[in-house]
Amino acid sequence: METISIGQYDLIYNVFSFTFAAMMAATLFFWFGRSQVSDAYKTAMTVTGLVTFVAAYHYLRISQSWAEAYTAANGVVTASPIGFNDAYRYVDWFLTVPLLLVELILVMGLSRKETSSKAIRLGLLAALMVGLGYPGEIADAASGRWLWGGLSMIPFLWIVYELFVGLSRSVAQQPESARGLVKAAIWVTVLSWSFYPVVFFAGAVGLEGTTALTVVQVGYTIADLVAKAGFGVLIFLIAVRKSEADMGRAQTA
Amino acid sequence: METISIGQYDLIYNVFSFTFAAMMAATLFFWFGRSQVSDAYKTAMTVTGLVTFVAAYHYLRISQSWAEAYTAANGVVTASPIGFNDAYRYVDWFLTVPLLLVELILVMGLSRKETSSKAIRLGLLAALMVGLGYPGEIADAASGRWLWGGLSMIPFLWIVYELFVGLSRSVAQQPESARGLVKAAIWVTVLSWSFYPVVFFAGAVGLEGTTALTVVQVGYTIADLVAKAGFGVLIFLIAVRKSEADMGRAQTA
Repeated sequence: METISIGQYDLIYNVFSFTFAAMMAATLFFWFGRSQVSDAYKTAMTVTGLVTFVAAYHYLRISQSWAEAYTAANGVVTASPIGFNDAYRYVDWFLTVPLLLVELILVMGLSRKETSSKAIRLGLLAALMVGLGYPGEIADAASGRWLWGGLSMIPFLWIVYELFVGLSRSVAQQPESARGLVKAAIWVTVLSWSFYPVVFFAGAVGLEGTTALTVVQVGYTIADLVAKAGFGVLIFLIAVRKSEADMGRAQTA
Repeated sequence: METISIGQYDLIYNVFSFTFAAMMAATLFFWFGRSQVSDAYKTAMTVTGLVTFVAAYHYLRISQSWAEAYTAANGVVTASPIGFNDAYRYVDWFLTVPLLLVELILVMGLSRKETSSKAIRLGLLAALMVGLGYPGEIADAASGRWLWGGLSMIPFLWIVYELFVGLSRSVAQQPESARGLVKAAIWVTVLSWSFYPVVFFAGAVGLEGTTALTVVQVGYTIADLVAKAGFGVLIFLIAVRKSEADMGRAQTA
């Protein structure tokens, strides 16, 4: 039976509990922020809060599943017959990753036609990316992880291309006060998302045991915090700056 | 097996339950307060409520963990095999202590550049301070407590210096009606925060047993109430006075 040290068990539990609290705090911050941006960016703030809300729900479930998967008593941790349900992460990503791209597109304030075409295309690519990754995550053999992980990289690279090339013209149309933040939001997306395949393929190059488990769980969690809560703060700041710029234009018009 | 008197057990449990209620009440007070301050201070009120909201969540968890860690039956309290998870405090502080500095900076209404540079610098120092304290809290030997506690004091003293010296010029720029309150908020921060190392080092000078446990748990809790809910009331009063001063200036302009 797999054993895990009490230090590792506690660290992972506390990281999950921290992340639930941080995601709920972020959610409320974004939803309160709705009243501080102009009407054009309210939907972006709603969606930004939905992403962290759904993540908070999943981290609550993940921490409960973690608590049930092991029995900690008298300083010794034993695996219980109920396994840890790691699928909560994929269920979460299937819903939140498309929405992360939607919030970025919404805050950019493109034309209605561009907004819907980009949101549908990037949203479907993101769902496809997550859906293709899951069979690799649960594959018994390393070959399965390489196959599905490799397939999942195709929509991932397509999204990266769209973000840098497809959105670059739209970045130039942003008000000057928000342009740096929009670029930062694109970079945060690409860099924080790149962290997931690193953790994913760590399992294919033979990283095993409880240290690997700790690295994977803590790694995915930090990536989620940056990609959802940290990214959301950027979306809020962009929405505030653009609301100010729109008001300034309205006054001088 | 560690024993604790029923009086001490009940006192600590009731203090935790009281603090959950007080933090939730404070949270709702601060969020209702958002509508009573001008737009410039709404984010400060949002963050003030987030701090007590996150603290309320952790006190709920702490009180549950306390209930599970002991079995009270027939007037005798026995430690259960499941230990008390004291790490919830550090998880809470890691999130709330940086936010406490952010709410103070936000309510001062500095320039955008100063706000972001001070918020990032002080926030990182606060996270570092909490992160360095934790290995000391769980250290088996007193030497570990002295080492990590000592390291943690470096960012702490840096923050104190920034609050008194770095923010003093900004205090002079506050409207007269709010200046005394801003000074009070800085003093409350420094004094209430100074209480934590006192409790922390009590464990390094040989304070042990269930009386020490009671002093530590009740001590940290009182410090949390002053530093988060009490401090938050000052932030609200500052935001109200500054909103009034801004309106006065707008009317005479």
